[in-house]
Amino acid sequence: MRETSDINALIELMAKLPGLGPVSARRAVLHLIRKRQLMLNPLANLIQRVAKGACACENCGNIGMTTICEICSDTKRNRDSLCVVEDVADLWAMERSGVFTGQYHVLGGTLSALDSIGPEELRIPHLVQRVENEQFSEVILALNATIDGQTTAHYIADKIADRCRITSLARGVPIGGELDYLDDGTITTAMRARQTF
Amino acid sequence: MRETSDINALIELMAKLPGLGPVSARRAVLHLIRKRQLMLNPLANLIQRVAKGACACENCGNIGMTTICEICSDTKRNRDSLCVVEDVADLWAMERSGVFTGQYHVLGGTLSALDSIGPEELRIPHLVQRVENEQFSEVILALNATIDGQTTAHYIADKIADRCRITSLARGVPIGGELDYLDDGTITTAMRARQTF
Repeated sequence: MRETSDINALIELMAKLPGLGPVSARRAVLHLIRKRQLMLNPLANLIQRVAKGACACENCGNIGMTTICEICSDTKRNRDSLCVVEDVADLWAMERSGVFTGQYHVLGGTLSALDSIGPEELRIPHLVQRVENEQFSEVILALNATIDGQTTAHYIADKIADRCRITSLARGVPIGGELDYLDDGTITTAMRARQTF
Repeated sequence: MRETSDINALIELMAKLPGLGPVSARRAVLHLIRKRQLMLNPLANLIQRVAKGACACENCGNIGMTTICEICSDTKRNRDSLCVVEDVADLWAMERSGVFTGQYHVLGGTLSALDSIGPEELRIPHLVQRVENEQFSEVILALNATIDGQTTAHYIADKIADRCRITSLARGVPIGGELDYLDDGTITTAMRARQTF
């Protein structure tokens, strides 16, 4: 490799991003340098600003540019229901759907005996405290439909059982899903939870 | 979308990179923010430096951090042969192979009547001038084996015909290639240029 050291180092670093490998990192960096005014300079400024300012919201765990995120400080949002998600990416996905207008709590992962992640490693004690203080009428456990996700959901449900109504996302056939391609577990669940047409 | 504006803008900009889309840009930015010390801060510094320093080599057109690139200023490299490539990415690919130790000239594209790219839009006049001044004994036309690439190769060969030996890369079956998956043109070319085993 003969790219000069800084460019080379940039390519190596970009190659470590999820979704990019060495080849696409090289293409991306070349593209950036070619489009200096349109891409490279704005990107340099933005990354600098994000590197300085990005932080986790002290309340919900969302990532933003302020210590209390936009969602938590939005007075128009309903303060009656709390949606618990594993990860910031899940919170963003939920927000994109636009279906939920309440408060969030990001756990930062799931309980996992194998990786020795207990409640203290996640933001579960903080969640229990919020449920006690903020008097939600409903807590929605929007955790992933994986074994770890469901274990964590059951653990949390136990902890906050008497404080409010606890719900979870419906399980069934995804929109656009074809039965032929679905796993047995999904079909069984969808069949058992069938609804009047 | 509810990510705060700077983070959002960063995601939108990253999504414009080749090889990344909106989803993978989001994942990449979250990954960066999570690994602040290891990824985000170094990336911010590197991009800043590259945005300030990156420029095209005045001699060969390679992209580097100096006005004359490392390859052109390397006194150990042979000054007897010149390899003409379409693009900086091709130069880097050639360097990775390590097979060539001479000088380079990057055209910056190919002639194209459709896109009205003539010799003046590429670095062809500069190439002709270099061939006159630097007295290469061989010019290797390492242009892509596409119609535009070959048109450009023929145009250049015409321009510098009497000055030195002109060669081009061999055409044939690529290493690891299976005949079954190769196009007719490649098989025909490889058959015609067959060699004693």
